[in-house]
Amino acid sequence: MHLVKDIGEAGLLAIVQTFCPGQLVGDDAALVSISPGQQVVVTTDLLVDGVHFSLGLAQPGIVTMTPEDVGWRAAAANLSDLAAMGARPLGITVGLSLPPDVPVAWIEGIYQGLAVCLREFAGGPILGGDVCQSDSLSLAITALGEVDPQAAIYRHRARPGDVILATGIHGAARAGLELLLKPAWGEFLTTYQRQTLIQTHQRPRPRLDVIEIIRRYLPTERIAGMDSSDGLADAVIQICQQSQTGAILWAEQLPLVQELPPELGQAWGFYGGEDFELVLTLAPAAAKTLISHLNSQAAIIGEITSGTEITLVSDTETITLDPQQRWQHFEV
Amino acid sequence: MHLVKDIGEAGLLAIVQTFCPGQLVGDDAALVSISPGQQVVVTTDLLVDGVHFSLGLAQPGIVTMTPEDVGWRAAAANLSDLAAMGARPLGITVGLSLPPDVPVAWIEGIYQGLAVCLREFAGGPILGGDVCQSDSLSLAITALGEVDPQAAIYRHRARPGDVILATGIHGAARAGLELLLKPAWGEFLTTYQRQTLIQTHQRPRPRLDVIEIIRRYLPTERIAGMDSSDGLADAVIQICQQSQTGAILWAEQLPLVQELPPELGQAWGFYGGEDFELVLTLAPAAAKTLISHLNSQAAIIGEITSGTEITLVSDTETITLDPQQRWQHFEV
Repeated sequence: MHLVKDIGEAGLLAIVQTFCPGQLVGDDAALVSISPGQQVVVTTDLLVDGVHFSLGLAQPGIVTMTPEDVGWRAAAANLSDLAAMGARPLGITVGLSLPPDVPVAWIEGIYQGLAVCLREFAGGPILGGDVCQSDSLSLAITALGEVDPQAAIYRHRARPGDVILATGIHGAARAGLELLLKPAWGEFLTTYQRQTLIQTHQRPRPRLDVIEIIRRYLPTERIAGMDSSDGLADAVIQICQQSQTGAILWAEQLPLVQELPPELGQAWGFYGGEDFELVLTLAPAAAKTLISHLNSQAAIIGEITSGTEITLVSDTETITLDPQQRWQHFEV
Repeated sequence: MHLVKDIGEAGLLAIVQTFCPGQLVGDDAALVSISPGQQVVVTTDLLVDGVHFSLGLAQPGIVTMTPEDVGWRAAAANLSDLAAMGARPLGITVGLSLPPDVPVAWIEGIYQGLAVCLREFAGGPILGGDVCQSDSLSLAITALGEVDPQAAIYRHRARPGDVILATGIHGAARAGLELLLKPAWGEFLTTYQRQTLIQTHQRPRPRLDVIEIIRRYLPTERIAGMDSSDGLADAVIQICQQSQTGAILWAEQLPLVQELPPELGQAWGFYGGEDFELVLTLAPAAAKTLISHLNSQAAIIGEITSGTEITLVSDTETITLDPQQRWQHFEV
């Protein structure tokens, strides 16, 4: 098996360059065209072995992803940040640090995963990057996008009277991680359910499709929001804090993973994170339009209020969320 | 002394955010304006402790830079890549990985160094980024710039008849590193010379000033080139390979560091790297114009020829450079 230390930096770069468009290879930087009237959107994320994924290097015996999954997830997380701003992707750069005893096939796998995810979501090309030896395997991805500044989605633009809309299902990615870390867990799940939950963790899907629908059907609408990469509760808290508003959330309407016991579904769905869905606030009529085009893959989960209190209301109780507290039990 | 592990991710982010403009904090990505008719230029560099600099973590006892130097150098290397493309900087993103037992003051130092370098060279703001725990301390910097695509400097645009122009002095950065690694070395240097050489290694200066002069006085000129971050010889080889040309270099004209014995000056000046100067090929009249505005801080070191051979000519000998060989002795 070839290891990275056997092929050196030149060998590494030769592999990496096969994943970049020919005209982008061989200069100190890449040029990217922007459509007239658009601004550039830029976001950078670090993903480190043993923190954001486990290839078994940092924690021997713990393997939650293949190299292809790592590449996919790295691209997906950054594309999700672009979607969170309402932007259209233009491409990514990749900084890859890796220990010398990593198999060369892993590098190809990571870039393969990046390339497949970029293709699937029209994320643009790999615009270049850098490779370097290090003690840990990590990826630093910078994604570039473009957005009409009038149509950009910011966290601070929520207003009282907006409804809060969440796309997709929450908690599945966290459940998938649990299945990978504790294979004996979840014996109440079918094989199909297990595979689906694991897939949601390993291959998250950035919601650029939602942005395309907004661009087509709601091009001039004021929309606030962000992605739910740190959890559904966190997204609502961030939006309210940046907008200086409060919110009421309806516990029965939260789009929680259904395959789990209610208490777990609630904990992981509300607080789990890594689902990479979108949490948006907008006028009720606009939300209705958006949901109709999303084929019900979205739910209105509450509304923005004046004040700064965020309450979660169910048939049997009302709790006030503490922004500093990562997890609060609630009844549904 | 506060360590990173004492303040956690939230504490880290709070420090980092003090170095970002207020309006850029609090969203998933940053928006950047581009001037009409310009393209975006993007470049990513990794800098790893123990590889690109030594803070004493990876190799205990070996310290070549302060945290401020590391930040400066990281920004400077990326701004130099923008200069190499003829671009004007718009800002950078910063991905910082660091071990938990690093002093908090180091983080502030690194960001301080980044900020001071960006201010000095009009490099734009820190547009955001990410912080994560890791086994190694490393920085992943992505720099954004803008360029009129007609005025972009590419490696592949050299033509026979162009002269080859190098800015600044080469070999000083390599000599500075030697002084840091072997303090007993260089007893023939004065204290002032030692300090100057060390400064060149720790605080390299990207040549964005050259690009401003080109933009003003030679806006429509065809110019090929790159920076000399991997050495003067490497730059000429890369330009010739990408342009499918050869070159003649005049050994007596090479702008080599003067403070060293000739053999060392030649080796480190021609092959050393990290000087972050520019190596440009252009028509002889344009080169003359550029040199006149650079107050002689540039030299014509040779010319582009047809064929693919790169020769180095002195009064006493002619040698042919082997692109695969990192170092070849020559007489001056």
